[in-house]
Amino acid sequence: MTPALGDISKRLLLGRKLRSTQLGETLLPKRIALPVFASDALSSVAYAPDEIFLTLSIAGLAALTISWKISLAVAVVLVVVVLSYRQNVHAYPSGGGDYEVANVNLGPTAGLTVASALMVDYVLTVAVSISSAAQYAASAIPALEGHQATAAVIAVLFLTTMNLRGVRESGAAFAIPTYIFMFTILGMAAWGFGRLLFGHLPDASSSGLDIAAEDQFAHGASGIAMAFLILRAFSSGCAALTGVEAISNGVPAFKKPKSRNAATTLALLGSISIAMVVSVVTLANVMKVRFAEDPGTQLLRDGVPVGEGYHQDPVIGQLAKGIFDHFSPGFYLVAAATGVILVLAANTAFNGFPVLGSILARDGYLPRQLHTRGDRLAFSNGIVILAGFAIVLIVSFNAEVTRLIQLYIVGVFVSFTISQIGMVRHWTRLLRDEQDPGKRARAIRSRVINAIGLTLTGVVLVIVLITKFLLGAYIAIIAMACLFLLMKGIHRHYDTVRRQMAAEGDEPLMLPSRVHAIVLVSKLHKPTLRALAFAKAARPYQLEAVTVDVDRDEADQLQAEWETRGIPIPLKRLASPYREITRPILQYVRDIRRQSPRDVVMVYIPEYVVGHWWEHLLHNQSALRLKGRLLFTPGVMVTSVPYQLLSSQGAEERQDRVERVAGQVRRGARKASGDR
Amino acid sequence: MTPALGDISKRLLLGRKLRSTQLGETLLPKRIALPVFASDALSSVAYAPDEIFLTLSIAGLAALTISWKISLAVAVVLVVVVLSYRQNVHAYPSGGGDYEVANVNLGPTAGLTVASALMVDYVLTVAVSISSAAQYAASAIPALEGHQATAAVIAVLFLTTMNLRGVRESGAAFAIPTYIFMFTILGMAAWGFGRLLFGHLPDASSSGLDIAAEDQFAHGASGIAMAFLILRAFSSGCAALTGVEAISNGVPAFKKPKSRNAATTLALLGSISIAMVVSVVTLANVMKVRFAEDPGTQLLRDGVPVGEGYHQDPVIGQLAKGIFDHFSPGFYLVAAATGVILVLAANTAFNGFPVLGSILARDGYLPRQLHTRGDRLAFSNGIVILAGFAIVLIVSFNAEVTRLIQLYIVGVFVSFTISQIGMVRHWTRLLRDEQDPGKRARAIRSRVINAIGLTLTGVVLVIVLITKFLLGAYIAIIAMACLFLLMKGIHRHYDTVRRQMAAEGDEPLMLPSRVHAIVLVSKLHKPTLRALAFAKAARPYQLEAVTVDVDRDEADQLQAEWETRGIPIPLKRLASPYREITRPILQYVRDIRRQSPRDVVMVYIPEYVVGHWWEHLLHNQSALRLKGRLLFTPGVMVTSVPYQLLSSQGAEERQDRVERVAGQVRRGARKASGDR
Repeated sequence: MTPALGDISKRLLLGRKLRSTQLGETLLPKRIALPVFASDALSSVAYAPDEIFLTLSIAGLAALTISWKISLAVAVVLVVVVLSYRQNVHAYPSGGGDYEVANVNLGPTAGLTVASALMVDYVLTVAVSISSAAQYAASAIPALEGHQATAAVIAVLFLTTMNLRGVRESGAAFAIPTYIFMFTILGMAAWGFGRLLFGHLPDASSSGLDIAAEDQFAHGASGIAMAFLILRAFSSGCAALTGVEAISNGVPAFKKPKSRNAATTLALLGSISIAMVVSVVTLANVMKVRFAEDPGTQLLRDGVPVGEGYHQDPVIGQLAKGIFDHFSPGFYLVAAATGVILVLAANTAFNGFPVLGSILARDGYLPRQLHTRGDRLAFSNGIVILAGFAIVLIVSFNAEVTRLIQLYIVGVFVSFTISQIGMVRHWTRLLRDEQDPGKRARAIRSRVINAIGLTLTGVVLVIVLITKFLLGAYIAIIAMACLFLLMKGIHRHYDTVRRQMAAEGDEPLMLPSRVHAIVLVSKLHKPTLRALAFAKAARPYQLEAVTVDVDRDEADQLQAEWETRGIPIPLKRLASPYREITRPILQYVRDIRRQSPRDVVMVYIPEYVVGHWWEHLLHNQSALRLKGRLLFTPGVMVTSVPYQLLSSQGAEERQDRVERVAGQVRRGARKASGDR
Repeated sequence: MTPALGDISKRLLLGRKLRSTQLGETLLPKRIALPVFASDALSSVAYAPDEIFLTLSIAGLAALTISWKISLAVAVVLVVVVLSYRQNVHAYPSGGGDYEVANVNLGPTAGLTVASALMVDYVLTVAVSISSAAQYAASAIPALEGHQATAAVIAVLFLTTMNLRGVRESGAAFAIPTYIFMFTILGMAAWGFGRLLFGHLPDASSSGLDIAAEDQFAHGASGIAMAFLILRAFSSGCAALTGVEAISNGVPAFKKPKSRNAATTLALLGSISIAMVVSVVTLANVMKVRFAEDPGTQLLRDGVPVGEGYHQDPVIGQLAKGIFDHFSPGFYLVAAATGVILVLAANTAFNGFPVLGSILARDGYLPRQLHTRGDRLAFSNGIVILAGFAIVLIVSFNAEVTRLIQLYIVGVFVSFTISQIGMVRHWTRLLRDEQDPGKRARAIRSRVINAIGLTLTGVVLVIVLITKFLLGAYIAIIAMACLFLLMKGIHRHYDTVRRQMAAEGDEPLMLPSRVHAIVLVSKLHKPTLRALAFAKAARPYQLEAVTVDVDRDEADQLQAEWETRGIPIPLKRLASPYREITRPILQYVRDIRRQSPRDVVMVYIPEYVVGHWWEHLLHNQSALRLKGRLLFTPGVMVTSVPYQLLSSQGAEERQDRVERVAGQVRRGARKASGDR
């Protein structure tokens, strides 16, 4: 039999299952790990400079000159954070990153705080990156204008499918575009600086415009207001730092030596990221780029607002148009590469989130299903949950990057800061026992680096909280708090249950003395006959059939048929003046238990097995309700005796075929070739 | 222990359960049956005249004079339909009304067509009546303006609660306002005619306005266009006929002699209804009421549209303002009585729909749950479904009566017509065997009446279809077609299943020879120990514990603990290279079956019983999936061995308490007094 079309398309879409021993094959070399884990941090150059300019433009044209100082401050923070995380990666090569560091060194509450922050942040990474990608797409393809949210949701669904295929294949598929992006942006910057040196660099097309400062800044700003605005621009620029922690969470996915490879990749990522942000901001300054949140009213031409008709390209787009003024494909290459890298940035979260979710599930903070690896080893459940929340955010904020970015960053810096506290504690603890002078020196050096990291990230966290709280950060904080409480609750629940269920000492098997069996009967059809036969075959101590007298005529008819057929099992009729089914049976079972408390009651329920979900609405409803109630009664077992209706065979064959095909692919493909 | 607050409030809201033998107590005397079943037909006087005037006003002021002729035509149809249905009620006293008549005389397809039409119509009755009530409320209480849909939804929910209490109590609660409505409207009409006779009746406040005809009617209408418009006004007026069939569906709820009481009530209903419609339309003509769909642009004062600021009262409201011009409470009494009667009209559907649904469920056209009487004997399921669909309609059409009314009526006339065909057939069949001359004469007379009814309702149906199809009737027809196909499908399904399950001849109990039992084990905790103990107590032919080797370390640990404890049951480890749980177990069970096909396999699954729905997300997930798959395999039984976690006790006690309280009320209240 040939596999059905649905099976094949599922296979094409989701790839083949992986065997446990194949896990080794999915490890990543540096040249693949860099694009997979670094695209988040790199891609922020697509929106971080825009946010810096947009915030400063509130204070008018003159304020824009501060932008390059802000970019340098961001670069300094980035250097420090990269150096700090190189220590993390070396100290904890097993992944879990910030969560593990906080958990081990500061206890479960700190760990859970970090975990909540990271999870919220992963969701925001997807939402922000994909929304920004949609804006870039709309700026290159005018037809998309106004449909950014829809485009963004489709992109998230696409990424979800890709990631359900598994880690390694997504890595390979995503490497090339990331490299194209790096070379495109750095190439554009080099070309721009080249033209600058030789005196040919034109101004941006928006350079002739003036910017209307907001009222409070119109007549010379107060020092405090200006300082606050600069800090706000700085904290927006710190969006460039998000994604650095992704590598420390992903160390186990690196090829050996895992820690060293991860540290090298981290250093590479930091250098490229700084080069990009600083050169984009510098070029934008040199080329006099004007960029405002609401360009129609804020940008002025000869003192008059440019109006709603004005189209404002992103900063990188404006640079590309100026630098490649005689080579228009250059602009489209930059826009396309940026759009694609942003989609891939979201992929960083798709790599990190399920790993973290699985670790949390292992530690009992999330439902156990999340711990189980899916068909593709890629933690399907976590991927689906991440995508769901990101879609909710995108739809709620209509894919507007500037509004989403206010929720972003706070989570990253919460985990940065707590993780650095943990690292300082780690080295201090290590130094307590360590005698070897070489190792001590290295630990002391590491502790200094992490302490500097802690100070700086702590300061940035405070700045972010002060400048962003009312603008949206409070939403992220509430989400973190909810997640924290939820996970705490789940943990407590699992704990309670585990204590309740733990078998004490060498408790013997407490054997009930006898089994009373009752078979529930409503009509005398094949399912009932089968249940009676199976129950009889089990040879219980006592066996009777029980029916509830809801309708006297029907019950009389049943009894008559019972006698005609000469069924060798007594039929007990239970009275039910209020036409209930559940209560009389429950009462009867409890009576048996009361009379012989050392016995156990086995209730046989004939069940129809159907092939389609809608058939469940038509069958088994009262059986299901009854079963739910019976299970509450101690000393009762409930046995479902299935009767397979014809429609169930189709469903069974469908299931079997899917599994058989998957099995053939696994085994066959492995024999044919080691790689695919 | 005192019952919890929740139990008491449920009791207050839903009333006490009824015992089967109490069913007799819920039968209705005529004086209660009239308001319960007739409010639908009576209440249509609140919107039917408005729709007549509104449609005619499309052709300008002159066309309004036709309105009283249209009301007479409606009255004629009403007389004929009432006379016809008196025959139905006598011929079929068991309820089911049109459905039963069509089913018995014309076969199941005709019956199902009628049933689909009636069900759609019940939903529309609720939607139209409640929406109209919301409009009346908004006209008396300006604050409600713009919130009609919300008010309508709340009213539907209120009615749902009332009806979940049971038939009789709702009848008693609804009788008084219906009588108030009758006396108010008829009293107003009498007062109006009195003032007319003595020369004091003022014109309506809108009498001075002109009406702008639509373009096609502006310069003298063509005969065909005018005829079409008149027919459309007539079919809108026929909304006054909806609800007549409610009595024939409800015959079993009447006190004995059921048929005669129902026929008398029907005649009463017809007379009152005609009196109301004709006098309202006549008075509106005399008092020169102007009424338009879009009053702001259609109504002209001195040739200029009155504009959006103009408030247009319903026709009855305008009459009340004129007739009671020196007695303003009169207007509020009319508005209040009309609003209330409309809510009660919706109640007619709440009485009829669940009865019909239950009959259809008995005949296997709807899921069996609908047949079972609920706690309050009042077919709770049907009530809830009716309310759900009505709310969907109200929200979709924003509670606009004029739009909803286009969907209405077609269903009623479909069932009128088919039912009359059925009645003609019924009498013809009766006459074939009947010899008694008196009875023959009566049957012939009845056949003539039903034939006239058939002709007239058939003509009206054609008119309704022609004039309303594109305006919205197509939606109702599509809904009927869907319902028809759905019920046909359900019937075919139940049929197939019944044939599959029917026990043949005197088939003996096919006893399997032996029982192989396997207990599924993942960890060694109390639930597992209990499952092992229970399984051992059942003394199967062969018993083993089975675990799946998903994680080698965990499995090794389990085996070690197994041996330490010296559990006297062999532990079988199943390999699972792809970390699946379901497939290896399924394979193992099938292997056992293959080796000994005459045996049966019993799979014991330890299950956690939890008290809250959310706990299910945290437990039993893989057990549930496994169970679902095992049931597909023939020769396998699945036994759930419950382990009650502490949280389950709370849930059990809650359940028990509800039932105990309900039981006390039932028994206690009956002893204390026979009536309540």
